[in-house]
Amino acid sequence: MSITISSITAAKRKRHTTYNRLKKQVHLLLDPSDGGTIWDKVVNSVIVALILLNLLAVCLETVESLYREYGVWFRNFELFSVLVFSVEYLLRVWSCTSMRKYRHPVRGRLRYVTSPGMLVDLAAILPFYLPLSGLDLRSLRLLRMIRFMRFFKLARFLNASRVIRRVFASKRNELLISMLMVLTLIILAASLMYFVEHDAQPDKFSSIPETMWWSVATLTTVGYGDVYPVTGIGKTLTACISILGIGMFALPAGILASGFSEEFKKRETASATCCPHCGKEIHHG
Amino acid sequence: MSITISSITAAKRKRHTTYNRLKKQVHLLLDPSDGGTIWDKVVNSVIVALILLNLLAVCLETVESLYREYGVWFRNFELFSVLVFSVEYLLRVWSCTSMRKYRHPVRGRLRYVTSPGMLVDLAAILPFYLPLSGLDLRSLRLLRMIRFMRFFKLARFLNASRVIRRVFASKRNELLISMLMVLTLIILAASLMYFVEHDAQPDKFSSIPETMWWSVATLTTVGYGDVYPVTGIGKTLTACISILGIGMFALPAGILASGFSEEFKKRETASATCCPHCGKEIHHG
Amino acid sequence: MSITISSITAAKRKRHTTYNRLKKQVHLLLDPSDGGTIWDKVVNSVIVALILLNLLAVCLETVESLYREYGVWFRNFELFSVLVFSVEYLLRVWSCTSMRKYRHPVRGRLRYVTSPGMLVDLAAILPFYLPLSGLDLRSLRLLRMIRFMRFFKLARFLNASRVIRRVFASKRNELLISMLMVLTLIILAASLMYFVEHDAQPDKFSSIPETMWWSVATLTTVGYGDVYPVTGIGKTLTACISILGIGMFALPAGILASGFSEEFKKRETASATCCPHCGKEIHHG
Amino acid sequence: MSITISSITAAKRKRHTTYNRLKKQVHLLLDPSDGGTIWDKVVNSVIVALILLNLLAVCLETVESLYREYGVWFRNFELFSVLVFSVEYLLRVWSCTSMRKYRHPVRGRLRYVTSPGMLVDLAAILPFYLPLSGLDLRSLRLLRMIRFMRFFKLARFLNASRVIRRVFASKRNELLISMLMVLTLIILAASLMYFVEHDAQPDKFSSIPETMWWSVATLTTVGYGDVYPVTGIGKTLTACISILGIGMFALPAGILASGFSEEFKKRETASATCCPHCGKEIHHG
Repeated sequence: MSITISSITAAKRKRHTTYNRLKKQVHLLLDPSDGGTIWDKVVNSVIVALILLNLLAVCLETVESLYREYGVWFRNFELFSVLVFSVEYLLRVWSCTSMRKYRHPVRGRLRYVTSPGMLVDLAAILPFYLPLSGLDLRSLRLLRMIRFMRFFKLARFLNASRVIRRVFASKRNELLISMLMVLTLIILAASLMYFVEHDAQPDKFSSIPETMWWSVATLTTVGYGDVYPVTGIGKTLTACISILGIGMFALPAGILASGFSEEFKKRETASATCCPHCGKEIHHG
Repeated sequence: MSITISSITAAKRKRHTTYNRLKKQVHLLLDPSDGGTIWDKVVNSVIVALILLNLLAVCLETVESLYREYGVWFRNFELFSVLVFSVEYLLRVWSCTSMRKYRHPVRGRLRYVTSPGMLVDLAAILPFYLPLSGLDLRSLRLLRMIRFMRFFKLARFLNASRVIRRVFASKRNELLISMLMVLTLIILAASLMYFVEHDAQPDKFSSIPETMWWSVATLTTVGYGDVYPVTGIGKTLTACISILGIGMFALPAGILASGFSEEFKKRETASATCCPHCGKEIHHG
Repeated sequence: MSITISSITAAKRKRHTTYNRLKKQVHLLLDPSDGGTIWDKVVNSVIVALILLNLLAVCLETVESLYREYGVWFRNFELFSVLVFSVEYLLRVWSCTSMRKYRHPVRGRLRYVTSPGMLVDLAAILPFYLPLSGLDLRSLRLLRMIRFMRFFKLARFLNASRVIRRVFASKRNELLISMLMVLTLIILAASLMYFVEHDAQPDKFSSIPETMWWSVATLTTVGYGDVYPVTGIGKTLTACISILGIGMFALPAGILASGFSEEFKKRETASATCCPHCGKEIHHG
Repeated sequence: MSITISSITAAKRKRHTTYNRLKKQVHLLLDPSDGGTIWDKVVNSVIVALILLNLLAVCLETVESLYREYGVWFRNFELFSVLVFSVEYLLRVWSCTSMRKYRHPVRGRLRYVTSPGMLVDLAAILPFYLPLSGLDLRSLRLLRMIRFMRFFKLARFLNASRVIRRVFASKRNELLISMLMVLTLIILAASLMYFVEHDAQPDKFSSIPETMWWSVATLTTVGYGDVYPVTGIGKTLTACISILGIGMFALPAGILASGFSEEFKKRETASATCCPHCGKEIHHG
């Protein structure tokens, strides 16, 4: 583990080994993918629960009546959470050298600290340590929102996030094409409607970027009802666009659905399908 | 059937056998999965019809003009229904010992009574027998609503409910993941929009939980139009979120559709699939 | 074709044969599935065009400004159309005895006249011949609407209507189940929301049948915005219902899409797929 | 390349060859499908960027506040773009004779100029050269909009546009049928609702064509909320129509999704599929 081991005394060596064993234990305890003892599960469950409670707290804090009454509790909980997450962060950085990949005490740790997962962890606690005095209300709110970064800490614990990533990767091309079609439709629909409706409703269809609000609301079929065509030709155009266009917006869903279907089928059939009678492999279409 | 049979006289035994045969008949008559005589169908049809009429009655009762005029009829019909369902319930409990599984007169009946189907049946008649005096109007309405439990009595008679359950079970993982994505999207969209629109519309985007109402209405594309962004950045954000997010909400539909497709295909091909090498039949999951 | 042929003179027989040949010609001319000469196509195209023009006329007639100005033209066109359709109807009835199935001059014709296609044809012209005096405005409008029956005359000419029917037939079970789920959802959602929102908005959620209007508008994601929950619990419930329920409403689309996919694939592969090298048949999954 | 080569002097011939080589170079530089040097990529990237900037400019120009302030810049950028596109157009026309297909200096160029891609290119610059004086504001705006033709210049550079075209071609029949069902539904729903709601809301359901606006807004689930039924029978009818009809409108999306799925699967498996009997490769459609 360390290259200097041979040059130290036996006593020191023993202490060093105990130290390394502890580091390894801590690493296994914090990393959800390695190890499998009950203590692992307990530690992970506690962290996941704390993250979820944090999200709940950030949400509920914004309810003014709750904040006025329980403000102290919210602040104390925040303090406690940041403390726990900071300790977790430091322990992770300290114990990461147990991993082959990050063995080197300095360079290994640097590479570990700059890995995506650890950057998310850092972003989840950093805002708390910034000097917050002299900031206006809006910036303070933004900082509070950044605490939502803690949400992404969950990705480490979720098997699902890996499946989702793989499905998106496998359907990359289809998704890109459908996004392209969607963007094209939005721009074209907006420019057409701007031309048609601008004279009738100069305040709502005031410019093409403004009209895009209408075209998004229509093509996604949200239809808030704050902007809609009033002229005959505008209505006819809207009818044509929405009949043709709605398919495009439902495309990604269809593509993703088949992606998930295939991903899970792959997992099931991964364990080689054999004829139960003659034992030969059978390759399904 | 009974352990005490050998200790009773022949006359008693004969009476006992007649009694058991009757019990068996009653059981077969009430259980839609066993037996197949015309009388079975008649009894089942009558019960199904009564359930459907009950649902109709509960719905129509809430129409004030109808209730004022035909109130007596509604109450009488309710009385009649509860009577029939109670008799049905008691007969079921009495005759359940004809089934192997619930043979024991006490323990068997207890286990039978606590099975999900029987609990639904009980919940469908119980509210009627509770002392209703001294309850406020709202609780009374709640009790009336509980009569909707009778709806779930239908599950017993429907082949479809088994298919639905199997499709949901086979697509459990996909559905869970898509639900997770949906929830994530709702929370993130709400917190972003709260931050962006709170200053412009403090009454509508008053807190993150409140903003979730907007994010559900938008991402499901319902778009009532009671809450929508008015600032430029809010609209831009909404456009991005809805273009990216709508796919997520349509995912479960796609997943379920392919689930049904596979379920029915499985049933069709259940009959014959052979190994191309040895010609013997292979039973796929 | 007729049993009395042998008993008539040669001259008569010749006339009769000419008559029968003419009848056959007329039949082939009017039936889009038999025959394939250019005249067939011309006659069919003219009838299809006339049907489409009729639909257009019925639609445009309702535009008051157009009707006030061109009323005479609309009435004349209607007169002309009914004339053509009546002649077509009579010629069909007269010539149907050329078909094996309807050979008998009386019973054959009766069976032919009561076939679904011919009933549609009759319904498309009959209202015109009814004594219209003494009818109020609303009934008159209804009669005018019945002219839309002419639309279904098109089914005879469309290959697509057969494909659609076959897809619906093959997916009958899936569609039935999803319809059942949809209806269940509508009723349950309505009764829950009635209970929750009735006190806050007694005019909009006045009864369960009335609340179904909200539940349909929400679950189909139409969301007109005329009815929506205002209480916190109502909004939460709506969120849950719409997240869970939207999948159900998109199910039929997914089912039908896969139905069309399979139908067209079946047609393509119907012509036996063989290995181009060894000539043996290959059965794809 | 030219028939007159043999009759000119060697010096002239040399000059001519240089000229032809240059033409070839220019052609390769401008055509994204031929050639593959770094300069190709640079030139293509510059043109694509210029097109995208043009689209952005057309959109932003319509924002009055921006146009008032940066009007000169917009006009200068337009001037610059038209110049570049004109030079590109002329160079294309000049160098097209390097291609086998368009070798003839006059007839080849004529055929090249009338190819769809070149017509789009022409339409993208032509409006600028028309005498614009004496036109009213609306026509001027239309001419500005025509600049959106530049968008379609992108098709030349996109691999995706070919995939999209192939998917639409392969699913032509399904899409046509679903469009037919959609149109049928719109017309029938509109005529039914016109009949039912006309008396209650004569201003909103004033005629069948007017009511089609409602039926499109409902069946696409956009539901702006500007038109909705108010009578009981109208609401019931709307519920039935939308439950049955929504599947139809989601059909094209499902069809296209499976189309893209198949297209990309085809590409993956294009490499190797063998007959299980003789082992030779089989090329599927």
